[in-house]
Amino acid sequence: MQKIDLNCDMGESFGLYQMGNDEEMMKYISSANIACGYHAGDPEVMRKTVELAKKHNVAIGAHPGLPDLMGFGRRKMDVTISEVKNYITYQMGALREFAKAFQVNLQHCKPHGALYMMAMEDEDIAKAVLEAIAEVDTNIIVSAMNNSAIVEAGEKVGIRVAKEVYADREHTTTGSIIMTRASSNIEDYQAMTDRVLRMVKEGQVIADTGEDVSLTAETVCIHADTPGALQLAQSIRKVFESENIEMVPMKEVLS
Amino acid sequence: MQKIDLNCDMGESFGLYQMGNDEEMMKYISSANIACGYHAGDPEVMRKTVELAKKHNVAIGAHPGLPDLMGFGRRKMDVTISEVKNYITYQMGALREFAKAFQVNLQHCKPHGALYMMAMEDEDIAKAVLEAIAEVDTNIIVSAMNNSAIVEAGEKVGIRVAKEVYADREHTTTGSIIMTRASSNIEDYQAMTDRVLRMVKEGQVIADTGEDVSLTAETVCIHADTPGALQLAQSIRKVFESENIEMVPMKEVLS
Amino acid sequence: MQKIDLNCDMGESFGLYQMGNDEEMMKYISSANIACGYHAGDPEVMRKTVELAKKHNVAIGAHPGLPDLMGFGRRKMDVTISEVKNYITYQMGALREFAKAFQVNLQHCKPHGALYMMAMEDEDIAKAVLEAIAEVDTNIIVSAMNNSAIVEAGEKVGIRVAKEVYADREHTTTGSIIMTRASSNIEDYQAMTDRVLRMVKEGQVIADTGEDVSLTAETVCIHADTPGALQLAQSIRKVFESENIEMVPMKEVLS
Amino acid sequence: MQKIDLNCDMGESFGLYQMGNDEEMMKYISSANIACGYHAGDPEVMRKTVELAKKHNVAIGAHPGLPDLMGFGRRKMDVTISEVKNYITYQMGALREFAKAFQVNLQHCKPHGALYMMAMEDEDIAKAVLEAIAEVDTNIIVSAMNNSAIVEAGEKVGIRVAKEVYADREHTTTGSIIMTRASSNIEDYQAMTDRVLRMVKEGQVIADTGEDVSLTAETVCIHADTPGALQLAQSIRKVFESENIEMVPMKEVLS
Repeated sequence: MQKIDLNCDMGESFGLYQMGNDEEMMKYISSANIACGYHAGDPEVMRKTVELAKKHNVAIGAHPGLPDLMGFGRRKMDVTISEVKNYITYQMGALREFAKAFQVNLQHCKPHGALYMMAMEDEDIAKAVLEAIAEVDTNIIVSAMNNSAIVEAGEKVGIRVAKEVYADREHTTTGSIIMTRASSNIEDYQAMTDRVLRMVKEGQVIADTGEDVSLTAETVCIHADTPGALQLAQSIRKVFESENIEMVPMKEVLS
Repeated sequence: MQKIDLNCDMGESFGLYQMGNDEEMMKYISSANIACGYHAGDPEVMRKTVELAKKHNVAIGAHPGLPDLMGFGRRKMDVTISEVKNYITYQMGALREFAKAFQVNLQHCKPHGALYMMAMEDEDIAKAVLEAIAEVDTNIIVSAMNNSAIVEAGEKVGIRVAKEVYADREHTTTGSIIMTRASSNIEDYQAMTDRVLRMVKEGQVIADTGEDVSLTAETVCIHADTPGALQLAQSIRKVFESENIEMVPMKEVLS
Repeated sequence: MQKIDLNCDMGESFGLYQMGNDEEMMKYISSANIACGYHAGDPEVMRKTVELAKKHNVAIGAHPGLPDLMGFGRRKMDVTISEVKNYITYQMGALREFAKAFQVNLQHCKPHGALYMMAMEDEDIAKAVLEAIAEVDTNIIVSAMNNSAIVEAGEKVGIRVAKEVYADREHTTTGSIIMTRASSNIEDYQAMTDRVLRMVKEGQVIADTGEDVSLTAETVCIHADTPGALQLAQSIRKVFESENIEMVPMKEVLS
Repeated sequence: MQKIDLNCDMGESFGLYQMGNDEEMMKYISSANIACGYHAGDPEVMRKTVELAKKHNVAIGAHPGLPDLMGFGRRKMDVTISEVKNYITYQMGALREFAKAFQVNLQHCKPHGALYMMAMEDEDIAKAVLEAIAEVDTNIIVSAMNNSAIVEAGEKVGIRVAKEVYADREHTTTGSIIMTRASSNIEDYQAMTDRVLRMVKEGQVIADTGEDVSLTAETVCIHADTPGALQLAQSIRKVFESENIEMVPMKEVLS
C-alpha cells in the first residue's frame, strides 16, 4: 500500500489576525508546519497549534521564516549564512519548547516562503539550513523540492529529505514551483486533485511549460492561506482513500 | 567560606546596535542573564553570548522580556497571564537551543525589566512565570527580590528562588528596587561596592527611606547598560576576593 | 434635521493579514479612522484606504495606536507623556502624506484602543494627545467619550471634541465603555440599533449597571473587527434614514 | 568660491540603543539625513534630531529605509515597486510632521542602505523613489551616486539630483560604492580627507580597480555609525576651510 504525507502551514495567525482555518484543516492533514514567530505566528498561537496537532495525531514540524512579518516571509532578503543558521536555531528552539510541553517531538523542519526558495536554489543557504537542523537533532527530516540544493546537501550532512510537491502551485520542469507573494485562488479542485494523484501515483506532472516531467512525491503541500484550501484538502484526502493510498506523517513515508 | 553570585544582563545588543561590553563584563561575573530577542538580543547575538559565557565558565540563564524593543522591555504592559507564560516558554526555548548547541544547560531564568517587576508584585503573574519555568525544567532557578510574589509562589510550584539584590539601584524597605527606564549613571563605585558588601556579609542595607533593613543576598545584579558597569563589577569582585567571599554561579550558592 | 456621524476603524489589515471588510463597510459610514502602522495598518494598506474613503466621500481621520502589533494596540503600556505625543505626531504625519496625495485633509484624530482609553482616563495623556493634534493642525477634531479627560482638556487646548458613543459596546454610567481585547460578537442587531437610535435621538442609554444615563452622541463608533459589523452598520444606517436623521462626517455635526 | 555639501545619516538611535554621536556630528555637517523609524530611528529620536539640526542650521532630509531594524536596512529585500513608493511616502510624511513642528522644510530625501543601492541600480525602483518624492513636494532634492538610475530618471520626473560621493567608502569606476553591512573602520583620516578634497576640487578619484575616474561631487557623505566619523568630519571641514571651499546645504550647491 502506497504511503503519502499531506502537509500544511499552520499557526500562521498573529495576535488578533487570523490566517487560515487551523481548527478544520488539522483534521485533514498528516503533518503540520508550524510558524515560529518570525514571518507569522506568536507564542499564544504556537501553543494552541501544537495542542491542536497533538489532538488530531498530526506530526509537527518547525516552519521557520525570515524576520519579515510585513511581507509574510515571502520576500527574499540578503541575509548572511550565519543569520540563516541562527534564525532557524532560534525558531526551532522556540517551537521545540512548546512541543516538549505536550510531550511531542519535532518530526520535521520546513523553511517558509522566501527562505524555503533560497534554500532550494543556493547551496550555501541549503547547507546552513541543514546544519542548523543537524545541530538541533539529526532525526529531524527536512522537506524540499525535487532536484533542489537541499536534496543534494541533505545526504552529505546526514539529514533525511522528504521530497515535496504542491497541490496549489504550478511546477517547473525541475520540480520547483513559482513562488508568489499573494495567496493563490483555488478554482478547480478536481483538476488540482487529479494532478496531485498523478504526482503521487505515477511521479509525473505537466510542468508550466506544458512538458510532462518526472518527480518524486513523498509529501504534498497545501498552503493554508489559499482560499478554498480546506475544500482542496478534503478532496485530496477523499481521492487518497478511494485509491488506497495511505496518508501518514512524512517520517512513516520515509521509513 | 561565604558564597555569592554576581549576575549581569548580557546579550542585549540588537543587529548593529551595541549594548554594554559583554566581552569584558563576562570576565567578572558568575551568572549571565541572556536576552532572548523580545526586549533585546537577536539570534546572532544569542549564539555569540552563549559561546562567550561558556568560554569564561559563566553559568547562563534566560532573560525573557516583554515584546517591546522600542521600550527595551521597561514599560509595563497589560499582558494576559497566558501571554506571560507563553512569552517565557518561547524565549526560554529559543535560548535553550543555543545553549544545547554548546552543551550547556540553563541554570536560571530571570525575567527582564517591566516583566520582572510585574512578577515581583503580582501573584498571578509570578505564578505564570514559575509555571512556564517548571514546564521547561524544574531544575531551573528563578532570581527574585526579597519579599516578592515570586519568593512565596516559588516554594509552592517547586522552583528554587535565588534572592537578589542590586549593585546599581536603590532598595526599598521591602528589598524591592525602584525601576527606571533610563540607564543609571554610576558615580561612586566605592559607595556602591561597600553597600554590596554589607548586603552580602551582614544582610543589611540602608533603604531609600534612610531606614536600615534586612534582606538576603544570594545573587547580586549589575545592569550592563549602566555606564561604569564594568568598573563597578571589577570593584565588587576585588572586594569579594579581599573579604574571602567566593564568587560562584547561583546554583552553587543555593546548593 | 438632526445630524449624526457614523465612524469606523479602517485600514487595520497588515501585509497578508486581513482585518474587517473595508471595501463594503466604507459604503455605510461617514468618517473613517485609519490605522497608521503602529497597532495595525501598513503603507500599502494606508494608501488603499485613503483612496477608498475618498471614493465613497467618507471623511478621514488618523487612528494612531501604541507600538504593539502583537496586542493590536489594546494593551495599556507605561509610555511617557513625551512618547504619547511623538507617537501621535509620527502616525498623523504618515497618514497626512497619503491624504495629501489624494488632496484630502484630515478631519479628525481618534487614538486607538488602549491609547484611547488612557487618554480618556488620564489628564496628562489627554493633554499630550491634544497638543500633538494642535501642533499638526488646530482644525482637526478629536473624538472622545462623554465626561472623559479629553473633553475637559480639549476646550483648554482649543481642539474641538466630537462626543462619541458605541454601537457594539456596553456603556458605563459615565458614558465610558468597557474595553476588551477580543473582538465582540454581535448577536442582536436590532437591540443594538435601537440602543444607538435612543442615544442619538434622546441622549439616553441603559448603562451596564441597569441605570438609565444621559450622554451626548455626536459620532457613533462601530468596530470593524466585530463579526457582523457590516450588518450592524447597514441596520443603523437604515434606521437613521427612516427616522430622518442625516448621516454626515463629524465636522458637519459639530459645525 | 566653490560650494560643497557635507551630509551625514542622523537620528539612527532607537529606544535605549545609541547610534553615532549626533550632538557632536551636527556641528560639522550642512545636511542631515534623518532616519524615519523603519531601518532605525523612533518618534522620540526624530523630534530631537530635527530640533538639533535646526539649532545648528543644518538642512534636513528624510532618510527612509527598508522595514528591517534587525538588519539596519542594509539587506536587500524583494519589495514591490508599490511597496517602495509607499514606504517612502509613509516615512517622509512622518518626518515632515516633525519638521513642520519646528517650521522647517524638508530639503532632500536620501534612501538608506539597501534601498539606496536598489534605487541606484534598478530603473523601476529609481522611478518609484522619485515618484514618491514628487508626490510629496517637487522641490525636494534627491541625493544619488554618479551614473546611477536615479540620475537618469530624476530629470524625467523633474526632481533635482545632488550627486553624491563618499568619504568613508571605496568608489567603483562608475562612481558607485561597495555597500557593506558592517560599520567601516576609519584609520587614515588624512588619506580619506585628501581623497574627498580631490573629488570635490578635481572631480577625480582612484577607484577600487586602481583606475583614475571622473565624477561630480555636489554632496559628500559620512556614515555616522563609522567609528571615527566625527574626527573625519572635522578633518574634512578643516581642509574645506583652508581651501576656500564653502560648506553649504545641498540646495545651495545646486542653485
